[in-house]
Amino acid sequence: MGRDNPCMPAPLVNDSFLRACWRQPTEHTPVWLMRQAGRYLPEYRATRAKAGSFMGLATNVDFATEVTLQPIDRYPLDAAILFSDILTVPDAMGLGLTFESGEGPRFASPVRDETSVAKLEVPDMARLRYVFDAVTSIRRALNGRVPLIGFSGSPWTLACYMVEGAGSDDYRLVKTMLYARPDLMHRMLAVNADAIAAYLNAQIEAGAQAVMIFDSWGGVLADRAFQTFSLAYTQRVLRQVKTVHDGQRIPRIVFTKSGGLWLEEMAAIEPDVLGLDWTVNLGQARARVGAKVALQGNLDPNVLFAEPPQITAEVIAALESFGPPRNPDGSNAGHIFNLGHGISQHTPPESVSVLVDTVHEQSRRMRVSA
Amino acid sequence: MGRDNPCMPAPLVNDSFLRACWRQPTEHTPVWLMRQAGRYLPEYRATRAKAGSFMGLATNVDFATEVTLQPIDRYPLDAAILFSDILTVPDAMGLGLTFESGEGPRFASPVRDETSVAKLEVPDMARLRYVFDAVTSIRRALNGRVPLIGFSGSPWTLACYMVEGAGSDDYRLVKTMLYARPDLMHRMLAVNADAIAAYLNAQIEAGAQAVMIFDSWGGVLADRAFQTFSLAYTQRVLRQVKTVHDGQRIPRIVFTKSGGLWLEEMAAIEPDVLGLDWTVNLGQARARVGAKVALQGNLDPNVLFAEPPQITAEVIAALESFGPPRNPDGSNAGHIFNLGHGISQHTPPESVSVLVDTVHEQSRRMRVSA
Repeated sequence: MGRDNPCMPAPLVNDSFLRACWRQPTEHTPVWLMRQAGRYLPEYRATRAKAGSFMGLATNVDFATEVTLQPIDRYPLDAAILFSDILTVPDAMGLGLTFESGEGPRFASPVRDETSVAKLEVPDMARLRYVFDAVTSIRRALNGRVPLIGFSGSPWTLACYMVEGAGSDDYRLVKTMLYARPDLMHRMLAVNADAIAAYLNAQIEAGAQAVMIFDSWGGVLADRAFQTFSLAYTQRVLRQVKTVHDGQRIPRIVFTKSGGLWLEEMAAIEPDVLGLDWTVNLGQARARVGAKVALQGNLDPNVLFAEPPQITAEVIAALESFGPPRNPDGSNAGHIFNLGHGISQHTPPESVSVLVDTVHEQSRRMRVSA
Repeated sequence: MGRDNPCMPAPLVNDSFLRACWRQPTEHTPVWLMRQAGRYLPEYRATRAKAGSFMGLATNVDFATEVTLQPIDRYPLDAAILFSDILTVPDAMGLGLTFESGEGPRFASPVRDETSVAKLEVPDMARLRYVFDAVTSIRRALNGRVPLIGFSGSPWTLACYMVEGAGSDDYRLVKTMLYARPDLMHRMLAVNADAIAAYLNAQIEAGAQAVMIFDSWGGVLADRAFQTFSLAYTQRVLRQVKTVHDGQRIPRIVFTKSGGLWLEEMAAIEPDVLGLDWTVNLGQARARVGAKVALQGNLDPNVLFAEPPQITAEVIAALESFGPPRNPDGSNAGHIFNLGHGISQHTPPESVSVLVDTVHEQSRRMRVSA
């Protein structure tokens, strides 16, 4: 029953992130950063150079473990997130993921017609074994310091890449399919949702203590199209994802970038936490949905290019916008501090120290004075 | 006093657009499309080929007149909009605007430090004479068929291009200045606002019958930053822009792309019309601000890649979402149909016919049955 026994993981030393997900009291506001294991860290760049390529990094269990722990070793963050890519699932479907240097991800075989949509199916999860092995390895390496978050792209976000074949300015191809052939789009989204649910469940079984669905491109959809083609399929994922594993409840985070207009509808599909980008006012979001879900976010990553006094002021403004966790009726609201998007590769690492320390110190102060 | 006398323009044959701006009853919902004079039209491409370049087109009065009228000749649109670029003002400030092929606009001398910000000043409007001459020429050529809309980019949107020097993914340079040197950003925005006000007033004097401010990049700002660095300066423009010219009231349209969360605050600066992108539910927007402003929008331009039955269905859904113009208290709400963004260059011209005809026919039908 020692700490090195993978069948019996070490108990959590810092569970503030999980408690905030459940809207339970915490001593401070927990904080982690989207893409916290990334290019802004010199130690990440060194590991990446050893790995040779992004997918070389993501598919190697030891490298993935190493880079996931780098920000945890450097900063007092309250959660770790699996180092992987959101496009692993369509890659396992056989679309042929590559990363051309400076170009972002690209699929060799995009899905643009009836024949290729008909061929899509939930991939054998054995093809994603490298991800689940990484989860188990990271969980063991964390040794109970902080919880480990697993993740996937949303059904719609995966569909964007699967149809466009790469990033896009206008989403013309995927939206043309949506409006002209909604039958094909619904079939693709159903396959994606079932694949993502299986993928997240396998991450949970491998050791992930929370899961997050990144609906990075939900916000490019029109009202009505968002509900029909993104939210309904995120709901289809949530309905299939385990809520308990090994006696532990597994919180589920849903983050739709640019989805601030739809918070009530997103809360209604019953995630435990909603991620928010920086366009949303945290206090207003709390008033709208704070009784149903915890909130995660939402500093503009560009704040980290300013000097420490300005970073501190912006972090405090965000904490104060959310307000003290205790509600007037004695219940508790949940806030997990984060950026509103992934951290920029150009971020000075010292800025992250200022952010994390300010979140911890100021949120403790707010609890004392509340 | 003939129709060819430029000092006494012909009376408007179709003033449905202006009446909708004032929330007065109209026989049908007026419609025009952002970037309606554009590359999707073969006749535009022919004129552009004659002109040699985009700026060759925009700076030549005859060409600008010709392309502005092309969509009016082809479709029964209810308004014309000046053919020009949103970056003419910073170009007149001496930043050196160029359009590299396939690259979008670029400034030779971006504004990135204290010295270059200090040098900025409201340009001599004589340097923008070509724009005002085009307005007068277009107004005369329209001969009262429909009203002519003038326009400018917003102070913040111009600042984005002025600092970044070109389009951007993350707005890192301009946001770094915003967070690290707000004093410089405020100075730049004040100059921009005063320049834009002078520019719009000169367009009004030259014949523009309405003006629109495109805050294309307001939606990339964080809550609080939007109000401070975009909205406050759009308000500074509005406070200086003429509301009446030659006895005619001049409606002012403000369009913040991705600004749906801030509609109440935008309505509070007292534009006459708010433009909406497709993420906004028209009915909900009307409930939020419809008693204060008319609404313009908001079909996803990608709908125009579907077949006519689907285009028709989406147009009807948008009209029905707004609802009949008459309010329960007997007052009238204003809706101007438009896209939620500029029309794509890949749009089949026949799709625009379907859109315009459906707006007119269906909105007449809704008025009869209401």
